[in-house]
Amino acid sequence: MNRFTIDHLISKRASKRESSHFTSGPQETPPVGFKPHPDPLLLSYGAPNNGFFPIESSKVNLVDYPFQHQDKLERDYFEENTHSVNITRYTTNPDLIDLSTGLQYAAVEGHKPLLQFTKDFIKRTHNPNYNQWESILTTGASDGLNKACDAILDVGDVILIEEFTFTPFLRFVNNAGATPIPIPIDFSPESNGINLNYLTEMLGNWSNKYPDLPKPKALYTIATGQNPTGLTQTFQFRKQVYKLAELHDFIIIEDDPYGYLTLPRYGTTTTTTTTTAAAAAAAAAPKEVTVDEYLKSHLTPSFLEIDTRGRVIRVETFSKLFAPGLRLGFIIAHESIIKVIKNYSETVNRGASGLSQLVVNNVIHDKFGGVDGWIGWILKMRQTYSQRKDLLLKTIFESKAYQQGLVDVIDPQAGMFVTFKIKFLDGRNQEEITTKMKQLLWKTISYGVRVVSGSNMSVDANFSSERSNFFRLCYAPANNDKEIIESGKRLTNAVLEFYNNGEKY
Amino acid sequence: MNRFTIDHLISKRASKRESSHFTSGPQETPPVGFKPHPDPLLLSYGAPNNGFFPIESSKVNLVDYPFQHQDKLERDYFEENTHSVNITRYTTNPDLIDLSTGLQYAAVEGHKPLLQFTKDFIKRTHNPNYNQWESILTTGASDGLNKACDAILDVGDVILIEEFTFTPFLRFVNNAGATPIPIPIDFSPESNGINLNYLTEMLGNWSNKYPDLPKPKALYTIATGQNPTGLTQTFQFRKQVYKLAELHDFIIIEDDPYGYLTLPRYGTTTTTTTTTAAAAAAAAAPKEVTVDEYLKSHLTPSFLEIDTRGRVIRVETFSKLFAPGLRLGFIIAHESIIKVIKNYSETVNRGASGLSQLVVNNVIHDKFGGVDGWIGWILKMRQTYSQRKDLLLKTIFESKAYQQGLVDVIDPQAGMFVTFKIKFLDGRNQEEITTKMKQLLWKTISYGVRVVSGSNMSVDANFSSERSNFFRLCYAPANNDKEIIESGKRLTNAVLEFYNNGEKY
Repeated sequence: MNRFTIDHLISKRASKRESSHFTSGPQETPPVGFKPHPDPLLLSYGAPNNGFFPIESSKVNLVDYPFQHQDKLERDYFEENTHSVNITRYTTNPDLIDLSTGLQYAAVEGHKPLLQFTKDFIKRTHNPNYNQWESILTTGASDGLNKACDAILDVGDVILIEEFTFTPFLRFVNNAGATPIPIPIDFSPESNGINLNYLTEMLGNWSNKYPDLPKPKALYTIATGQNPTGLTQTFQFRKQVYKLAELHDFIIIEDDPYGYLTLPRYGTTTTTTTTTAAAAAAAAAPKEVTVDEYLKSHLTPSFLEIDTRGRVIRVETFSKLFAPGLRLGFIIAHESIIKVIKNYSETVNRGASGLSQLVVNNVIHDKFGGVDGWIGWILKMRQTYSQRKDLLLKTIFESKAYQQGLVDVIDPQAGMFVTFKIKFLDGRNQEEITTKMKQLLWKTISYGVRVVSGSNMSVDANFSSERSNFFRLCYAPANNDKEIIESGKRLTNAVLEFYNNGEKY
Repeated sequence: MNRFTIDHLISKRASKRESSHFTSGPQETPPVGFKPHPDPLLLSYGAPNNGFFPIESSKVNLVDYPFQHQDKLERDYFEENTHSVNITRYTTNPDLIDLSTGLQYAAVEGHKPLLQFTKDFIKRTHNPNYNQWESILTTGASDGLNKACDAILDVGDVILIEEFTFTPFLRFVNNAGATPIPIPIDFSPESNGINLNYLTEMLGNWSNKYPDLPKPKALYTIATGQNPTGLTQTFQFRKQVYKLAELHDFIIIEDDPYGYLTLPRYGTTTTTTTTTAAAAAAAAAPKEVTVDEYLKSHLTPSFLEIDTRGRVIRVETFSKLFAPGLRLGFIIAHESIIKVIKNYSETVNRGASGLSQLVVNNVIHDKFGGVDGWIGWILKMRQTYSQRKDLLLKTIFESKAYQQGLVDVIDPQAGMFVTFKIKFLDGRNQEEITTKMKQLLWKTISYGVRVVSGSNMSVDANFSSERSNFFRLCYAPANNDKEIIESGKRLTNAVLEFYNNGEKY
């Protein structure tokens, strides 16, 4: 096996950090005649014995499908408690994390069973195209992204970013002292998100275009169900982007918080409003998809599957698939990058909550039955998300605003976001778009629906203003289908009224 | 009420950070005629509805006192499950955190009920001497300390540190680009830790002593049960240190991870080896101390109680009193400092696990009954720690090594650490102490007891070598009293053998 390093792309700051601990003992070779004791006792670690922990055991009661708690009839069934996971102070099962371990100090990279799960999961879903990769747990995607920035970016370095993006990422770029450069998004039909021609051109003529800036050290991309546009890069497209990364020697930070929630094209499934979540799940989208079919035909491949050189940092999270409050995620990258991220973790947060790790690990193992069982849960989430996405689009398609050509949407292939385009502003000038979009936002608020303006998610509002005539819609927070339909109606009515009123507030 | 700022001591880096989020909506005043909708629906936040969370409810079963699980008879009693806390998806009780909230995205400063608890707790235990203070949750003491460093220290700044300390703190100083300067520890009887004469002199002659360094921006001190020495600063002593902070205008970072575990002087209570934890707790140290007595006569006051100016940053943690795996702690400081720490939190970890917050909050509220009930649990922990500390000292006092004057100990008034001094090395030169302590460490390992060398916990091994002839002993990780006694025997036997063998390995 060829071994290789990616060290030249690691930041100087991260390379210099050292990991050591005062309890690690003498580093020297033992003196002549030294015999280790067979049963050493500890007066060393400043860790309280687990006997000081007030929790003896815990029972975690689970649902069988999303929104089951809204189904009164199902609720009785649930209350028989046949679907629970017992957590104990001690266990001998190496796949589980017990309380004496989960509540104790732990290595910053995470508890072994869960860390192993993340690796097994990635092998099954997005197997990297090389061997020297590792995993480390994080306190969620934001934490993962900050750590990726710290690992790669020194003060003065440049990072490329989709012009509309998850803007908290700019904080992490700023924290590393680097400069963000936006890349336009292509909003044409069948778009892959990034404007590849622009990117290719920009990289090829870097020193002319940006004489004062070094060539980019990294590209940050949300390649599946892009935030805020909902666009997804095909495998073929990713290969082209990866080639640019090879040619111009940069890192790809692939942020994928909800890409596992793949969504069928609108109209390929039934969309109905149903009275129970169970019925909805049964009636809704991607029917009878097996895990193998899902992996083969539905899930978009990751950059990891192209990566032969360790230049991809993949940032995942349990926030969207389990729960955000866990503050739990993980990073897959070249082992040298994971190593510097581990050192940084010892400074910035000492790892994820052991309690969160314990609950996620034991629920996945005991309730879902490991990797494929966990994917099974994702498929159930995917059903609900598909149903919601199609209901929202259906409401929009049936609206007067859509039928009069005032608005358009991009049908997302994954995730939780829809681009809602204010079509009647297409081609208008910068100032007009900015003004009208602000007025229209107030109109939507007065109509009782909250959305996010594209410009609010831009790296550089000026650079992107001519493409800012859209709102990001998210169908994740709604309480039920009825709210989604009502939201869509309020939104399209607001646009219609705004347009008919002479485009004034 | 006088309001004042402490802004001149906040780092430039921290002052410059801004907090904003793309979902925060338009900042401008609403247009004329704008009416907010009475019942807005959300297509904005990228947060999954709690109906997507797989956990429906949970039951957390608790013990009544530390190590109860080791008592077989008590175990049956426990298994009746009369001591559990139920956690549900929804609650209307504002003092509790339900799953729909605890598992959701949340403000980085923490969930309101727990944040309020930390404030109520501080008011009851260490009421600050001014009003403009605030609290913020952290992912533990390490996180709190890193955030304190980031808030105060710019590149090139100086921070004073006890010469022997919790050395991971140096990572945080390094991360901020500052320079650590050690202050000698006074090892004389009745010492308060810091050598106050040295500190006073050093600050008074700073520009002569350190012509190339700016005056210190901060002092980092573990003022109660100092790590590694176990020394505690009296209230009177803290007042003198605080006066220096006023005179030379620096911040005091007070790290107090286990100071609530106050310990009676050795010999003032009975120490017996008992067969059950219940009996041990009953027989052991600080008997019948009420919460009021404890607060009045046992708990050492914090620097907060002297602080009139917001120059104290107090870093606390739930690691030692509840469990380290929670990754949960908090910081009490001037509101301006808390504000910049909040902004930094949005970059480095997005706050503590909601699951950890939920469990700690609801257990404290439902099981212990709030602030005084929580202090009641601390008093039970204190009993066990007192028993352990005295047992370890008793074993040492009864050893030949002690009785021959080869070793000495410092009886700690709080916490989990004892200085175990290798007395026969007192006054030896730097090289001799370094060599012998290394040899002796190997000897203790071969005798089957792990301890930490003082020099391993020094800011600057050369600066401190003549005071490095000690080990740090910790009685927290042992499984039971028997192990503590056996550890003490192995340790003192190792020293005796080392000494008698001509001080060779």
